[in-house]
Amino acid sequence: MTSRAVRLQAPKTLRQSTFDLVKRSMLDGEYLSGQILSANSLAAELGISNSPVREALMDLTSLGLVEVVRNRGFRVRQMTEQDRQEVLEMRRIVEVSTMERLTERGVSDDELTIADGLAHDFVSLLREERVRDHLDADHRFHMYLIGLLGNSRISQTVENLRDQTRICGAFVDIPLDTLQTCADEHLDLIDALRSRDRLLVRSLMERQLEFAAARGALTHGGGDAAAPLAVPLRADTATIPR
Amino acid sequence: MTSRAVRLQAPKTLRQSTFDLVKRSMLDGEYLSGQILSANSLAAELGISNSPVREALMDLTSLGLVEVVRNRGFRVRQMTEQDRQEVLEMRRIVEVSTMERLTERGVSDDELTIADGLAHDFVSLLREERVRDHLDADHRFHMYLIGLLGNSRISQTVENLRDQTRICGAFVDIPLDTLQTCADEHLDLIDALRSRDRLLVRSLMERQLEFAAARGALTHGGGDAAAPLAVPLRADTATIPR
Repeated sequence: MTSRAVRLQAPKTLRQSTFDLVKRSMLDGEYLSGQILSANSLAAELGISNSPVREALMDLTSLGLVEVVRNRGFRVRQMTEQDRQEVLEMRRIVEVSTMERLTERGVSDDELTIADGLAHDFVSLLREERVRDHLDADHRFHMYLIGLLGNSRISQTVENLRDQTRICGAFVDIPLDTLQTCADEHLDLIDALRSRDRLLVRSLMERQLEFAAARGALTHGGGDAAAPLAVPLRADTATIPR
Repeated sequence: MTSRAVRLQAPKTLRQSTFDLVKRSMLDGEYLSGQILSANSLAAELGISNSPVREALMDLTSLGLVEVVRNRGFRVRQMTEQDRQEVLEMRRIVEVSTMERLTERGVSDDELTIADGLAHDFVSLLREERVRDHLDADHRFHMYLIGLLGNSRISQTVENLRDQTRICGAFVDIPLDTLQTCADEHLDLIDALRSRDRLLVRSLMERQLEFAAARGALTHGGGDAAAPLAVPLRADTATIPR
């Protein structure tokens, strides 16, 4: 117990590394929607013990990215049309309002410089056609701005919603011209924040989300049979697979 | 494993009952802020095994209502001033926007009748001076309206934020005249939804939240030293106490 507790206090724990690795693979589309992940196989593959892997998978379960399948292990969450709509509706509410609040609060010149740097990282990656790195650059840009509000609950909620949008590589094959539009909008957003134009900030954020919605519908087929109800995020009737 | 799995599929599992009981005690102020809860003692008290109790406490941990304390057990979350501000800011964003969306969608006569019934339950309980039941009636009224949007993620988020507001009985000793104002506002909110007056719905919801903010500041002292940063809700560096 003591040695494990000490190890878990280290800068990046095995649990955290496994969490990051599995999440990365999901966002990159290396794991398929509905794919079963076995904690034991994953632990063997990584050459580590089962416990941190199981804990990492439980963390992903509580974030709604994987689900527990009794006696089988963990399954990469299959997002139904209902799930996708819920995530987007909540993103519209939280992300748009957060950016409006940020506009009201005002963004300092130093903060705008950092945001501008992040927006230009996105542009550079675009030139190099590194699509996956892009999505991360886009994520960093938006999360930086949201983080300026200093509300850890809002930041975590948005991060989780964005991960749910990107699950199973929904966005890895975005056409480059679409990304160019996105890059331009990032720069426009910085200008709108600088001039504290709340309505423009709002409409730019709404456009970014409309794009995510359209892309999601394309990737997920849009018309697939909606499940009767989304599975609640809190897995309170699930057993923890050993 | 099989018998446990079957038991967990039953209508209300021991894990769920324990979860509800501990949450209830927290909201009623029977557990103090910062109080240590031992899974073993709680299990002995309830005459059940440790596992469902530990699982229920882990569920409460992932909701940010209790936190894991290494080698000691679980501690009832101490909400700092920063936590309180974060919860209220997020409630303002999510609850107000949700009610605005609901106004745009429109609420049917049948739905308004149900909401009206719930608002009148609140009024009846007020007459009987049953303060604790009230808070539940208030919760049911708002959660019913939010639920009409049919977005399980929004409903769960709001439920959790409201629980965090009420943690440690912050609201159990509300003066009756304040509750009367709250009761009147519920009826006004129904009228505003009926006439689809989005601005009025917005201002009524904002007033309900201002009241929660003022009450919270009163109960929590308001001026206590803000912690440097709120502990993230995801307890990803914690060990699970056995």
